[in-house]
Amino acid sequence: MSGARRLRALFHPQSIALIGASDNSGWSLGTFNNLRDHGFPGRVHLVNHRAAQVHGEKAYRALKAVPEPVDLAYVMVPTDAVLPVLREGAGLGIGTYVILTAGFGETGSEGARREEEIIEFARERGLTVLGPNGNGFINAAAGITPYGLPIPPPLLRGPVGVVLQSGGLASSVLSFAQSRNIGISLLVSMGNESMLSVADIVRYLVDDPDTKVIALFLESVRQPAEFAAVARLALAAGKPIVALKVGRSDKARHTAQAHTGALAGDDNVVDAVFRQLGVIRVRSLEDLIITAGLLARGPLPGPRLGVVTPSGGASEIIADRAQDEGLELPAYAPETVAALAAMLPGFATVANPLDVTGYVVVDRTLLGRALEIVTGDPGIDAVLLLAELPRDEPADPALARALFGATARRVAASPRPVVVVSNALTDITPVGRAYQASTGYPPVVGGMEHGLSAIGAAVRWSRAYRDAAAAAPESSSLTNVPGSLPSARTAPSGSPGISVTDLPGTPPAARTSPSGALSRTDLAGSPPPSWADLPRADPPGAGTGATGVWAEDRAAALLASYGVPVVPSHRVDDEDAAVAASVAVGYPVVIKAVSGAIAHKSDVGAVRLALADEPAVRDAYRAVRNAARAAGAGDAGVIVQPYRTGGIELITGVVRDPAWGLVLAVGLGGIWVEVLRDAALRVLLGGPIGPAEVRRALGELRGAAILRGARGIAPPDLDRVADVVARISEVAIGLGDRLESLEVNPLLVRGMQVEALDALVTWRG
Amino acid sequence: MSGARRLRALFHPQSIALIGASDNSGWSLGTFNNLRDHGFPGRVHLVNHRAAQVHGEKAYRALKAVPEPVDLAYVMVPTDAVLPVLREGAGLGIGTYVILTAGFGETGSEGARREEEIIEFARERGLTVLGPNGNGFINAAAGITPYGLPIPPPLLRGPVGVVLQSGGLASSVLSFAQSRNIGISLLVSMGNESMLSVADIVRYLVDDPDTKVIALFLESVRQPAEFAAVARLALAAGKPIVALKVGRSDKARHTAQAHTGALAGDDNVVDAVFRQLGVIRVRSLEDLIITAGLLARGPLPGPRLGVVTPSGGASEIIADRAQDEGLELPAYAPETVAALAAMLPGFATVANPLDVTGYVVVDRTLLGRALEIVTGDPGIDAVLLLAELPRDEPADPALARALFGATARRVAASPRPVVVVSNALTDITPVGRAYQASTGYPPVVGGMEHGLSAIGAAVRWSRAYRDAAAAAPESSSLTNVPGSLPSARTAPSGSPGISVTDLPGTPPAARTSPSGALSRTDLAGSPPPSWADLPRADPPGAGTGATGVWAEDRAAALLASYGVPVVPSHRVDDEDAAVAASVAVGYPVVIKAVSGAIAHKSDVGAVRLALADEPAVRDAYRAVRNAARAAGAGDAGVIVQPYRTGGIELITGVVRDPAWGLVLAVGLGGIWVEVLRDAALRVLLGGPIGPAEVRRALGELRGAAILRGARGIAPPDLDRVADVVARISEVAIGLGDRLESLEVNPLLVRGMQVEALDALVTWRG
Repeated sequence: MSGARRLRALFHPQSIALIGASDNSGWSLGTFNNLRDHGFPGRVHLVNHRAAQVHGEKAYRALKAVPEPVDLAYVMVPTDAVLPVLREGAGLGIGTYVILTAGFGETGSEGARREEEIIEFARERGLTVLGPNGNGFINAAAGITPYGLPIPPPLLRGPVGVVLQSGGLASSVLSFAQSRNIGISLLVSMGNESMLSVADIVRYLVDDPDTKVIALFLESVRQPAEFAAVARLALAAGKPIVALKVGRSDKARHTAQAHTGALAGDDNVVDAVFRQLGVIRVRSLEDLIITAGLLARGPLPGPRLGVVTPSGGASEIIADRAQDEGLELPAYAPETVAALAAMLPGFATVANPLDVTGYVVVDRTLLGRALEIVTGDPGIDAVLLLAELPRDEPADPALARALFGATARRVAASPRPVVVVSNALTDITPVGRAYQASTGYPPVVGGMEHGLSAIGAAVRWSRAYRDAAAAAPESSSLTNVPGSLPSARTAPSGSPGISVTDLPGTPPAARTSPSGALSRTDLAGSPPPSWADLPRADPPGAGTGATGVWAEDRAAALLASYGVPVVPSHRVDDEDAAVAASVAVGYPVVIKAVSGAIAHKSDVGAVRLALADEPAVRDAYRAVRNAARAAGAGDAGVIVQPYRTGGIELITGVVRDPAWGLVLAVGLGGIWVEVLRDAALRVLLGGPIGPAEVRRALGELRGAAILRGARGIAPPDLDRVADVVARISEVAIGLGDRLESLEVNPLLVRGMQVEALDALVTWRG
Repeated sequence: MSGARRLRALFHPQSIALIGASDNSGWSLGTFNNLRDHGFPGRVHLVNHRAAQVHGEKAYRALKAVPEPVDLAYVMVPTDAVLPVLREGAGLGIGTYVILTAGFGETGSEGARREEEIIEFARERGLTVLGPNGNGFINAAAGITPYGLPIPPPLLRGPVGVVLQSGGLASSVLSFAQSRNIGISLLVSMGNESMLSVADIVRYLVDDPDTKVIALFLESVRQPAEFAAVARLALAAGKPIVALKVGRSDKARHTAQAHTGALAGDDNVVDAVFRQLGVIRVRSLEDLIITAGLLARGPLPGPRLGVVTPSGGASEIIADRAQDEGLELPAYAPETVAALAAMLPGFATVANPLDVTGYVVVDRTLLGRALEIVTGDPGIDAVLLLAELPRDEPADPALARALFGATARRVAASPRPVVVVSNALTDITPVGRAYQASTGYPPVVGGMEHGLSAIGAAVRWSRAYRDAAAAAPESSSLTNVPGSLPSARTAPSGSPGISVTDLPGTPPAARTSPSGALSRTDLAGSPPPSWADLPRADPPGAGTGATGVWAEDRAAALLASYGVPVVPSHRVDDEDAAVAASVAVGYPVVIKAVSGAIAHKSDVGAVRLALADEPAVRDAYRAVRNAARAAGAGDAGVIVQPYRTGGIELITGVVRDPAWGLVLAVGLGGIWVEVLRDAALRVLLGGPIGPAEVRRALGELRGAAILRGARGIAPPDLDRVADVVARISEVAIGLGDRLESLEVNPLLVRGMQVEALDALVTWRG
């Protein structure tokens, strides 16, 4: 049976056995009541090996005593009894199980062993298991609710699929959705995800016709590659995923040897990968449901909002929030202004946001008529109407119904999406729900604060959706299908170990080929191997177990061998050689000690800059050797390089995130990374990223203005920068699974010249 | 009659006349219904000069026809008829008026004239007027509701005073407060504030025993000094002010001549002044009411929260939000851990935040018992209990009531404040309200998202309250009473105009006196005048109408004359003098052209740095003269200064905000201000700020780490920096009302040496 059919079977049982049903268990009673109260159309069988009656109904002593076929076993027995239940069920041909019982992997290694045991059995016998340690699911669309915690009535059916890694939140999510009159299709509490993962359920929901949008509560993404693959499917299918991912407060991970590790803290990586995958990240339960509810109605075509309100104060709140969300409130077109001016009272000011004034108290049609005019404005993408549903039965229900009906018709006839937003976040009451139902009034988004968050998110998702549809092959991280995940597990041999590297310091201006891909002669004098060409062999030393850190000379040579432009560098063994090398590269020069034992050379005095003549070079040679010795690096190597001044220092690094794999970080050097931690991240899920995506990443930096040429600094050639950074991401992927991090810091940019001045590679070991 | 008594009379009428009452007016009907439906205990008289019956009641043709005394006239007549109504009312001895009628200052100059006319008449006759163009007030405490827009029932009485600059928001505010079961004392819609301002109403609420906290919706603060004074009174009285101030999206104001203007954009100034005054700024209607509701219960003693929840997922959401708000979740004390471990099921993990686990379904007392243990923890300041009120009548009301009652007793007995927070923001339903009332259950804060915002704000307010109580005289901006606003309206004479300034370049290490105040010999060799000593005379040129810009030499001389350390500077008139000056200050030197016509000298080539010998000085002299001429500065002056390298560049400026007066901005130079706009602001409302406050301001900078000594930079003497910056704020205030801005950029800090390298003063024209 295919995965989709197995899940369909799991979520659509026609009979359910509650195994371990007991009057003493809140879970048992809750599940039984849920099935009864929310209209499960099939049969419920109670199994208790001691009691003949549970919850006032007949109970069976064993599963095999149940006289009818059972589709789904809902298992609440003690931990030790779970495997026997599965055995019995498998013997009876029961294929699908929800295991509520805890005491498995979440409790430690002994529990993990037990969990492994039951899942191995389930796999062998072809059983489908949700859980263990999960509360089950709520198939609202079909009225099938085997769920262990209370489901607040009424259970509203609707377009939102919900997947929770914390089943305890289900009641809150359902209550809140209900208060917004937002219905759900299917809610699943994942438990330990031993067989079925979040990605599996999302994949099911992507294909589920009852589900228009998917809302996730995530503590951790346990199967990142699968999650990424299914997120891409969802985006391609136009089904938005909205996620509340907790753990923002976790300490950023620090990798000792590279700055990049600190920049790419776990939570920043989550932000980056979600953005790359078109997953909308929200920070509250309210935003999760409100945003999902809005997106269930389809994309929003663009950021230009026309706003219609009956209040100046509310208009200003909306203007502030719109700016927060990157939304625009363009001036209305002349014809819109003229029509509004003709219709509104003389003391009204026609502007966007529009305040039709308190005169609505006198003429209650004012707001609807203004809405109709604004929906015709050619310069806006969507309309925000600030309006309230009645909370209690109004004094004149017929008039109210007529007004709501008129607005509903205007919204339906509008050539642009209309989003109705209430002032503050209060429940849509049963009276309000009834008015919506009877007048066809559109959904009302809950309050300006969360409403503008949702509109902002919807606009961003809609853009990601369009971009994904239109994506060039270049943006591989978004459009690659799961099967194309890179399998490069090896690294080049031979090329590192070169002791003197002398790549041209000022390579010819390199241009990208029309496709945006690197051409073979782009970066240096010699044609670089392309990523796909990288030889498949262990990096030198890996075979002998040597790991740790490759300091500047080896790292730079490695980069140079793959066409990354690197500052010319001569390794020298004595003072005379240092002087000769200085003459060769031209004064002034830099002298550095290089050793895997010294990650931050300048901190230990192992770098001397701006050496202008022979005596300075001789002094410096001795000084850095001594400094390296003092730092415990023994007889470190010494290199001579030309001294570069001016330009802009970038940092480019690729570091391995424990969940998401290689992550590229680019940022400006100096205080930008050291104090501000200003870096743009891209997770290399789908392979290296292209130059166009690098340019987008650079544009996200807080210091992006520097790159556009701040006062007194020549603007760098960003196409060239993007080529080099993209190349670095290629090289990192090509280095395979043993790579921990690859960092170029600084990458110096002077106009068209882009050059790695220093580099560091660390290997896992 | 005192202001307080007049307002008391306004808000406590025993009879109200609705003047301009009409069946055709929604406002009239609304006001009439509000008075009837919300239990106004006095008499309502309807006045309409044509109709004998309005709203089904007898109407009088004129005010004088009303047979009983009228305490409050609620005026809804056409604009032109307002003054005649006031005349008639004054003649009848009616002292208080709400004017709903619009068409006054908000419509332009003709309306402003009309408004001036009525307010002048009211002043003459000693009338009290709220409005015009305002909806009135809702005195919920006394059941007096002359308000022109619908008041949703039920109107809950409680501790929150509300002042709105947008009357249209009243319904939303009341609905939302009601949904949180938060009552109000008095709500006032301000209208045009022609006689009564927000500050007046806040002052009344500070003294109002029914009001524990004050919630404001502000579009602009029309009387900043009065507002500041009353905000200080509120803080001193322990009555929190929470404000939703819109206009965040307004473009930051740019003052052409000084960077400081861009740093001190209007909205940043509002942030700064609110922080200085202890006013809590929120960004949503939800936060306004939820935060006010929480603060109505008193201060929170500190940021250390103990969290008790029944859900791991919720615990993680709370942990994330707590970090956002600067709250701490310390580990529980060993005795707390032991007690929790003994009580909770074995599979629970004892931690803060605490998840008592889904076992609450089995043992519903678990949460309450855990709460009781955690409230005893000595290492926390307050407890957050995650819990829900019932939305609908529970299946077993007696059990539910017992559980809520038990929790209520535990909260009442807790030695630490307990804040109950619900999962998401849904209404407290009538059933929930009834449970609260019958069990004494504490207020429930609405949802984790807004709840944590409110707790964070409450902790910050509580700190400001304690700080204000404990403030040393030094923090004049917080503790000065309104009467002590500086009256310095004049500036020194005589001192500027000096053409050669030669203050010591390396003044002796200056220390603050023990009180933190500047001693007379702190800053330079000669004793500086103290702020109070500044001579009271116009700055030179002011008398003759000369204004504009004072460039470096005049500005620096002015600063130096008041003891601000300034780099030595020689004004020279020819090449030979330049060489002589260079020898005097020592090579290398800087040569600059100085002219009021050149604000940014380096942009036009009028600065030459690092001149090492005589030929370089001669070249540079000619070059900067030519550059200045080319920039239109004619025969600009030329100055010679020593060339300083190394150290940290600060920018310190004082700029005049149109609303709040002089604002001090301090920041780090270079990209910090130019790209990141990283500056800390202090509004100089109560006089200059002291060195301790300057140190706090420096600590707020994003780049504060630089000041603690970033890698490779010697840490500056921050006491010395604080003294100099405080001195600059003194000088700015002493320069009087004509000062537009005073900027020192850069203020160079090298260890203990702090020196103004350049300065600029602009005067108001």
